[in-house]
Amino acid sequence: MTLQNTRESNYPEWFQNVIQAADMAEISASPGCMVIKPWGYGIWERIQRLLDEKIKETEHENCYFPIFIPLSFFKKEAEHVEGFAKEMAVVTHSRLVNQEGELVPDGKLEEPLIVRPTSETIIADSFSKWIKSYRDLPVLINQWANVVRWEMRPRIFLRTREFLWQEGHTAHETLDEAEAEAKKMLNVYIDLAENCLAMPVVSGQKPSHEKFAGAVNTYTVEPMMQDGRALQAGTSHNLGDNFAKSAHIQFQGRDGKLHHAFTASWGVSTRLIGGVIMSHADDEGMVVPPVIAPHQVVIVPLYKDESKREAVAAYAEKLRTELAAKTAFGEKVRVRLDNRSKESVDKMWEWTRKGVPLIIEVGPRDLEKNALMIRQRIDINTDSWKSFVGFDEFVASVGQRLESIQSQMFNQAKKRLQDNIVMTIKTPAELEKYFSNQNVWVEGSKPKVSFVRGKWCGDDAATVDKLKEMKITIRCIPFDQSGTEGICLITGRPATLDVIYARTY
Amino acid sequence: MTLQNTRESNYPEWFQNVIQAADMAEISASPGCMVIKPWGYGIWERIQRLLDEKIKETEHENCYFPIFIPLSFFKKEAEHVEGFAKEMAVVTHSRLVNQEGELVPDGKLEEPLIVRPTSETIIADSFSKWIKSYRDLPVLINQWANVVRWEMRPRIFLRTREFLWQEGHTAHETLDEAEAEAKKMLNVYIDLAENCLAMPVVSGQKPSHEKFAGAVNTYTVEPMMQDGRALQAGTSHNLGDNFAKSAHIQFQGRDGKLHHAFTASWGVSTRLIGGVIMSHADDEGMVVPPVIAPHQVVIVPLYKDESKREAVAAYAEKLRTELAAKTAFGEKVRVRLDNRSKESVDKMWEWTRKGVPLIIEVGPRDLEKNALMIRQRIDINTDSWKSFVGFDEFVASVGQRLESIQSQMFNQAKKRLQDNIVMTIKTPAELEKYFSNQNVWVEGSKPKVSFVRGKWCGDDAATVDKLKEMKITIRCIPFDQSGTEGICLITGRPATLDVIYARTY
Repeated sequence: MTLQNTRESNYPEWFQNVIQAADMAEISASPGCMVIKPWGYGIWERIQRLLDEKIKETEHENCYFPIFIPLSFFKKEAEHVEGFAKEMAVVTHSRLVNQEGELVPDGKLEEPLIVRPTSETIIADSFSKWIKSYRDLPVLINQWANVVRWEMRPRIFLRTREFLWQEGHTAHETLDEAEAEAKKMLNVYIDLAENCLAMPVVSGQKPSHEKFAGAVNTYTVEPMMQDGRALQAGTSHNLGDNFAKSAHIQFQGRDGKLHHAFTASWGVSTRLIGGVIMSHADDEGMVVPPVIAPHQVVIVPLYKDESKREAVAAYAEKLRTELAAKTAFGEKVRVRLDNRSKESVDKMWEWTRKGVPLIIEVGPRDLEKNALMIRQRIDINTDSWKSFVGFDEFVASVGQRLESIQSQMFNQAKKRLQDNIVMTIKTPAELEKYFSNQNVWVEGSKPKVSFVRGKWCGDDAATVDKLKEMKITIRCIPFDQSGTEGICLITGRPATLDVIYARTY
Repeated sequence: MTLQNTRESNYPEWFQNVIQAADMAEISASPGCMVIKPWGYGIWERIQRLLDEKIKETEHENCYFPIFIPLSFFKKEAEHVEGFAKEMAVVTHSRLVNQEGELVPDGKLEEPLIVRPTSETIIADSFSKWIKSYRDLPVLINQWANVVRWEMRPRIFLRTREFLWQEGHTAHETLDEAEAEAKKMLNVYIDLAENCLAMPVVSGQKPSHEKFAGAVNTYTVEPMMQDGRALQAGTSHNLGDNFAKSAHIQFQGRDGKLHHAFTASWGVSTRLIGGVIMSHADDEGMVVPPVIAPHQVVIVPLYKDESKREAVAAYAEKLRTELAAKTAFGEKVRVRLDNRSKESVDKMWEWTRKGVPLIIEVGPRDLEKNALMIRQRIDINTDSWKSFVGFDEFVASVGQRLESIQSQMFNQAKKRLQDNIVMTIKTPAELEKYFSNQNVWVEGSKPKVSFVRGKWCGDDAATVDKLKEMKITIRCIPFDQSGTEGICLITGRPATLDVIYARTY
C-alpha cells in the first residue's frame, strides 16, 4: 500500500501524496489557498489547545484585532513595509455591484486596506491607546488568526497565500524585558516542537539579513526534515522601540518622564503541520505523534460473520469505553470506534494512511480469546507492527504504549538531527562542494545533504549573494557557541561565530 | 458607581458604556472593525468551547476554507450574490509597491477576490469534488472563522465590518434530511442560548422576505433585549438544491442515477456577546452568566495592614486552591486570585463592572473569623448583594451558588420575555398605534414596546413597505402555531399565521 511516490523516488511529490493519502488538506479553487480537511484541522486543533495552554500559563491573554490594516499604518515603519509590500492582498472596493446593477467592484475606498500579513502595526496602534504609565506594563497578548501573504509558489502547509497562526504581541518597560520575552516564548516553541510534535530543533538567533522586517533580533526554531532541509517552524522577535516609535507607544516612566515602550512578537502557524509530516511520515503515509493525534486509538470491528455481529459490536464498544476512561500524557485517551459501513480492511488502511498511532481490529476470534490484534503505526515495516495482546493487558498499558510511541518518535528524529549535523567543513571550497549536491532522502535516515555547522564572519552584505548562488541560507546562530576561531565558510575571512548552513523550505 | 448612561436615560449609549466599563472591546483604527479585548474574547472562548462540543457531539467535523472567494463563484447563485453584493470587501491587487518603488496598490489580479461574507459558494465547490456517491453523504462540517460584511453603520458586537463566527455546512441525500439538519442545529442554538447564555429565545421560521439569500427556509432564534427589541442571535438554513445546482454537487444515487445534493448551513457569531450584554447587564456594568464567565469567582485580598500581609495572602491562596478543586456545571470552578498591585477597592469595582458572578474580598478580619465577604453580582441593588459566610460553608457551596445564579439569570430573562409578548393586538390600527412608541427601557423589566404576537397574511410583497414604514420587522413565524383565524396586522386581510412583530438590532 506504499504511496505512489516515496521519499527516495520523489521527495516533494511524496509530501503531496502523504497529505492526499491522509486526507489532511487540498489546494482550493481560491488561488494559492488551501482547504484544511478534518484530519488536518484536527491535528491543528490539538496543537492550538496545547500551545494555548502554554501561552496562558505564561500569563498572556487572548484578544482579537481587525484583519484589515489601513495602508497608512504600514507606511509608518519603513523596514516593515519593505519586507511585506511585495506580497500583500489589497482591498480597494466595498461593493460588488455598481449603480447600473452590474457585478463589478464598486464603492472605491478612500484609503486601501491591507489584509494583515502580520499585525504589528495595527496592534501597536491599540497599544498606543492602552499604555499611559509604567503601571500599564507589561501588556501581554496573543491572537489566533488567519493571515495573508501573496506567495507566488504556494505549497500546502508550507507556503500558502492564507494560513492560520497565533501571533503574540507584548509591550515592556525596558529593552531587556522585551528581549527576555522573546527568548521566553522561543523556549515555549521549543517545548511545543519537541514535547508535543516530537520534532527536535536547532534554535538560535537569525543573522541580520534573515531578521523579521522591523525587528532588532529574531530568534528561531529549525527542525531538520527527512531530506536534510531546514523548516523555519517558529520565530520570536525583539522589536526594540521601532514599532513603539512609529506608532507612538509612550508611557510615563518611574522617573516621571515620557518613554517609548519596547515591544516583542512571536508566532507559529499551520506550517508546523508541514513540519510534522516531513519529520515523521513514511512511504505508507502519515504518522501522527500521539500527543497531537485527533484519535490516538482507532477500533475497527470485523463484521464478516453476521451471526457474530452483535457480540463483536459489544466487545468493540466495551473496549472503547474502557480505553476512553484511561489516560495518556495526563489527558483522557482519545479513542474512536469506527462503525462506518465500509469494508474493514479499507478502514484499517485509511487509518494507517492517516497515521493513527494504534489501530485495533476486533473480530470473532479475538473475542473468543479475550484478546486484541494491535497495529502500532510506527512499526509498520518491522516485525513488531502487529501484535496479539490480551484485552486487559492492552487496556491497562494503553497510556504507557502511547507515551512510549511518542518517545520513540522523538528519539528517532533527535538521532537523525544529531547524526546529520555536519561539523567537518572548514573552508569555502568544502562548503561549495558539499552543497553542490541536492537534498535527497536516503535510506537509513541519512540525507545526502543536511545541516552544516560552521564558521561565519557575520558580514551580511558580503554573504547574501554567495548564499543565494549556492541556494543555501544561514538558518541561525545557535545559542551554544563554541568560541573557537576558524575561517568563514562564505568569505574565507577569519571568523568565530558558529552558524547553521542549510537548504530550507 | 453607576454608568454615565443608564438603560433608562439612553439605552444605546448605555450599551457602549457597558462594553467600555467592562473593557470588553473597542472600535479600532481599522474603519468599522472592532478590537475584542481579553474580557470580551474570554467570553467568546467560553462560548466557542461549549458550542464546539455540541457541534462535535452532533457528528460535525471542523475544517477550514479560504477567506478569499473568486468573484465568479458569487455570480453562480443569483439570489445569493444579490443579497451580499452591496457589502463586500473586494481584493483587487496583490502588491503594495510598484516598479518605481512607490507604495501604491500594484499587481492587479485577473479576477477580483471577495473577502468571504459567508462561505456557501466556496464550500459548495469543495463539496462538488468530495461527493460522488450517496455513500459519501451526509457531509457534516463546520468552520470557525472571521467574515466581512461592509456595514455602513457599525456597532460593536452587533454590526461590525468584520466579525467572528462559526458556519456549519452540510450536504444530504434528500431535501428532508437537509430540513432535519437545519432544525437540529437550530435546537443546538436554542440549547446554547438558553442553557449557556441564560438567554431565552423565541424560535421559528423566517418569512420569505427575511430568508438568507439563496435559502429555501431560514430558521432563527430571537431573544428579547431589555429594551424590547429582538436580536437575531442565530440562524439555520435549508438551502434545498440551490447551491448544489449552481456548484454542481452531484452524486450517484441508490437508483444508479445522478442527483443534486441538498445542503444546509447554520451560524452564530460574536453578536451573541451583544445579546448577552443586552440581556443581563445593568446600570453598574456587565453581568456575565457563570457558564460563560472567564472567571466565575475573583478573590481580592486586602493588604492594608502590612503586618498581616503574609497571613492574608496565605488565606487567599488557600481559598483559591480549594475553590479551584470544586466543580460547577460539571467543570472545574474558574477562580482568579487578583494579586495585582492596585488598590483593592479599585479591583473590586473593576470586577464588578466586568460582571464576575462572585467577588470575594479577604482581609485580616475575615481571616480571624475564618469567614468571607461575598458579593453576588446579580444582587447588586438588593440587600443580599453582600453576605458574610463561613470559609468552609462557602467552599462547599460554590458550585451550587454558581448554578443558582445561572438559573436566576435565566428565569429573570424568561419572565421578561414571557411577560412582554403582547398578544392583545388584533387590527392594523392597533399595531400602528403600538409601534408609534419608541423602544425604551422601563424600570421593572417592562419595556414600553416589545414583541407583538399577532396574525399575518403571509403575503411578503404586500407587507414589506408597510413594515419598513413602521420601522418594524417580522422576526419569525413561531413553531407553536395556534391555528386560529384573525386579521393580518399589516394588510387587514384574513389570516391564520401567528408571527412575531418587533423592532430589531
